[in-house]
Amino acid sequence: MSRRSSTERSAEEDAALLSGRPTNKQAERGKWDGWVKLGLGVWAMAATAGIVVIAVLWVNNGSGLNSKFPPEGKRNIVFMVSDGMGPTSLALTRSYRQFSDSLPWNHTLTLDKHFIGTSRTRSSSSLVTDSAAGATAFSCGMKSYNGAISVLPDGSPCGTVLEAAKKAGYMTGLVVTTRITDATPACFSAHVNLRGEEDRIAEQQIGDYPLGRMVDLMLGGGRCHFLPNTADGSCRDDSRDLVSEAQKRFGFSYVDDRKSFDGLKKGAVKLPLLGLFAPTDIPYDIDRKDEDYPSLEEMTEVALKALEIATKNSDKGFFLMIEGSRIDHAGHGNDPAAQVHEVLAYDRAFKRVSDWIAGSRYPGVVVSTSDHETGGLAAARQLHEEYPEYLWYPEVLANASSSSEYLAAQYARYEGPADQEEDYIRDTILIKGLGIYDASDDEIEAIKDHKDDVASAWVLADVISRRAQVGWTTHGHSGVDVNIYGSTGTSKLKGNHENTEVGEFLRDYLQVDVDAITKELKGVNRVDAPGLDKAGYEWMGRPLSELKEAGFETDKLDCYHGQFRHKH
Amino acid sequence: MSRRSSTERSAEEDAALLSGRPTNKQAERGKWDGWVKLGLGVWAMAATAGIVVIAVLWVNNGSGLNSKFPPEGKRNIVFMVSDGMGPTSLALTRSYRQFSDSLPWNHTLTLDKHFIGTSRTRSSSSLVTDSAAGATAFSCGMKSYNGAISVLPDGSPCGTVLEAAKKAGYMTGLVVTTRITDATPACFSAHVNLRGEEDRIAEQQIGDYPLGRMVDLMLGGGRCHFLPNTADGSCRDDSRDLVSEAQKRFGFSYVDDRKSFDGLKKGAVKLPLLGLFAPTDIPYDIDRKDEDYPSLEEMTEVALKALEIATKNSDKGFFLMIEGSRIDHAGHGNDPAAQVHEVLAYDRAFKRVSDWIAGSRYPGVVVSTSDHETGGLAAARQLHEEYPEYLWYPEVLANASSSSEYLAAQYARYEGPADQEEDYIRDTILIKGLGIYDASDDEIEAIKDHKDDVASAWVLADVISRRAQVGWTTHGHSGVDVNIYGSTGTSKLKGNHENTEVGEFLRDYLQVDVDAITKELKGVNRVDAPGLDKAGYEWMGRPLSELKEAGFETDKLDCYHGQFRHKH
Repeated sequence: MSRRSSTERSAEEDAALLSGRPTNKQAERGKWDGWVKLGLGVWAMAATAGIVVIAVLWVNNGSGLNSKFPPEGKRNIVFMVSDGMGPTSLALTRSYRQFSDSLPWNHTLTLDKHFIGTSRTRSSSSLVTDSAAGATAFSCGMKSYNGAISVLPDGSPCGTVLEAAKKAGYMTGLVVTTRITDATPACFSAHVNLRGEEDRIAEQQIGDYPLGRMVDLMLGGGRCHFLPNTADGSCRDDSRDLVSEAQKRFGFSYVDDRKSFDGLKKGAVKLPLLGLFAPTDIPYDIDRKDEDYPSLEEMTEVALKALEIATKNSDKGFFLMIEGSRIDHAGHGNDPAAQVHEVLAYDRAFKRVSDWIAGSRYPGVVVSTSDHETGGLAAARQLHEEYPEYLWYPEVLANASSSSEYLAAQYARYEGPADQEEDYIRDTILIKGLGIYDASDDEIEAIKDHKDDVASAWVLADVISRRAQVGWTTHGHSGVDVNIYGSTGTSKLKGNHENTEVGEFLRDYLQVDVDAITKELKGVNRVDAPGLDKAGYEWMGRPLSELKEAGFETDKLDCYHGQFRHKH
Repeated sequence: MSRRSSTERSAEEDAALLSGRPTNKQAERGKWDGWVKLGLGVWAMAATAGIVVIAVLWVNNGSGLNSKFPPEGKRNIVFMVSDGMGPTSLALTRSYRQFSDSLPWNHTLTLDKHFIGTSRTRSSSSLVTDSAAGATAFSCGMKSYNGAISVLPDGSPCGTVLEAAKKAGYMTGLVVTTRITDATPACFSAHVNLRGEEDRIAEQQIGDYPLGRMVDLMLGGGRCHFLPNTADGSCRDDSRDLVSEAQKRFGFSYVDDRKSFDGLKKGAVKLPLLGLFAPTDIPYDIDRKDEDYPSLEEMTEVALKALEIATKNSDKGFFLMIEGSRIDHAGHGNDPAAQVHEVLAYDRAFKRVSDWIAGSRYPGVVVSTSDHETGGLAAARQLHEEYPEYLWYPEVLANASSSSEYLAAQYARYEGPADQEEDYIRDTILIKGLGIYDASDDEIEAIKDHKDDVASAWVLADVISRRAQVGWTTHGHSGVDVNIYGSTGTSKLKGNHENTEVGEFLRDYLQVDVDAITKELKGVNRVDAPGLDKAGYEWMGRPLSELKEAGFETDKLDCYHGQFRHKH
């Protein structure tokens, strides 16, 4: 590594090399060589340090080739679903919070700070997905038809990331605010041909299906599908007592009220755990009483802690799915006051998770997205035929203290004198409940007309939406792309993605073999396979072939056949 | 750099150092030192090569610390505004295109592939911005009130990135499909207190204001504000001939039709250039005839080429703003067929720009965003009181061959026999124009009722929207966050941002001093400053103080004062 080439070597140097005696030049070169070595060493170390610094910055920056994906060793993933939360839900909630908490106009939600991309949501059977097809895209990483609970358009079950994670040694959990048997949690832990088969879903969730018990922790509502139809509060078609089966056959510990939940908070968690805190839905956050029901944030906290402890001595971490289930319900109900409180509750749960991930000694990520938008929500609404105003009023939402669902149910129970009914509507429902003092006679009449029918809450929601100048186009879902949020380590989901790519991310992060589960399920239990025995037939509910014979589409879009109505 | 420390030095070595003769150990160490140097050198070079490779990868990855922002030397920026394009516009157009071009469900628009973030759009005076406050956020990087054309809530003008770029030696251009005097282009090149002052805006755009001529190229519509009120096709209040002034006082070359535009395409461009191809708006892309009007993509191509040539020998590049202006108009009109064609036209222009940027020998970026959403558009609509369907029908939009605006104008000109009028509506307007064969008598009646009034096009748009099951909540704007798209080099805009941060990005990329322009304008021309002379008063139009006296809000939100209407 001398900087002088061999052709420059002098006779004197050659002689010295032969005799072994140092020349003056050699002595000089000796010193010089020391400097060369010093220089080379400094250079090598500086360059190496540079690489290390860049690599660390890069990894921290969460972007690119040198940040190993997935990280090595034990790791955790929390997947959060904001069911029915579209882009407008965020703008609405952010501005509502700025108003109600007197925050500056550039104050944002925790979610906003983690925004990384968007997800395209269509299903195999419609440009507007339902939650079942939406969650199947996440759980199986495949497009399927509206109504499919981790079943493909051909009627065969597809393995889910939760099942694959469990088989690979991860611990698994589901936390929701609606029925644990509803579409989103069901898609991770069950396979049925139509989402309505919630009795079957409950059976599979406790472990009564070909794979056995796959879920270590379930917290949420939906108790009615676990109780025998002989018991109060059951909504099962049969007399199976799944709570008892869960405990005796599958070893679950079981909690079902605030008091026992508080026991969990204090650390009395034994997995597997089944916690069902409401017959169907946990109340909207705007209506929820802390003394009666845990919040999504509290259930999240318990789940994280329980799974952390349960994996303490394992070389594998956990997969946890957390759903803000009822953002969707507020969208279906077109209730903007209920929705902003649901989004805020979800945002707090997201903060709890992202703080936990950041503080964990093991690598981990949180990914949050929606399955679809609900309601065709818009932060603006034209009230008259004249040209509309450019505004909406968050203060109207801030005046409401109950959801329209709660108030409709309250009004349905009114049994006072008929001549005091309108005063009751004005004072108790509208003023006390919604903070609305200027109801018109038309509105009072409409509320009375719909007492105790399905549209009762919709009428109240319309009263508040109009005053807030918040618009809706449907009580169903819409086809807009939904937001993706993620912590450091989720850069693969930056930009615009198909919803199935979110599912692929989950399995790739955990490096689990979902296809092997699909094969296992297909091999033994394809529901409409010829010669399937009765037991196999039944575990997934009615076979898809029956639905298809009735004209149910699973693999192509419906087309326009002239249905519309026009009023002026 | 010997690996043996001095304390290990042996007596033999000391003697040799003193005598100058090599010991056996020294001879061995001589060989060993060669290997050390070789090793160190290889290490140093490998580490350095590693740094170089990582740095190159990093820069190409467009992310982070080592990719210099802004790039050194000559550079170009193209800022694209999709006026009124909200998140749903993309989902709608993408699915429409998949249907009409028989593309697979995972086929996306060029924009989708460049999605990087979202922008929060509220103004200083409302949660729902207008295009003027929206574009002021981009041009000045500041929040202002609805209606403000690069003027702050206190009535003082704010310097724009285009003005600062021009002063710094960049070439500048504006390309639009609406009036060049409309809010978005106006905000880059003019300052008035209310956007309606389009006569004043036109004057400033040609150079008749304190800063002199700042724009080198303008292509679009809006000729009527440049013609004297004595001329056909003028909409000016006065008799100034701005086309003539632009040519004689400010040296513009002027083109105003397809033929002269084709001359530009062939290279006959002389800057400064004023090209006004329509009295007001260039027709919607669904209605536009190639032989009459250039497309947005064609105008974009001419602008890029002209600015590239004009900056060929300069050490500065150019700032070009391109607006897909009429996505917004289709939103105001609630016309989904017109909108998907506008978005597709914008997507083609975006592709043209991003291809140009990628192929340029100088660094450059394209950033695309919207000022706001228009229409409260939803890809789903509930038609009846019963529970809604989860779908929408792109084929209904594909059947339309004209915009509802065009068809309403066509019907307004109908002067045939009254007893054939309904047939005309059915055959010519609905079947031929909208592809709708199943109009109800109610609908025909509504169309007749609104002949030639302002809501005429709205009725037709409603007929097609219902059949497509596409929903709208307003003919105005809404408050949802809008998408940001960008090429490599725009990673600062990843994630969720305030719209003013988009404006900050533009100035930061060009490294131009917008504040200096603000100071220059404030110093001499604050409109409502005491003692301002008549000329200063007039260049910005009516002073804001007059508007404020009438209760016009510029720096706080309007609040709810009980306005609503409820029908059942």
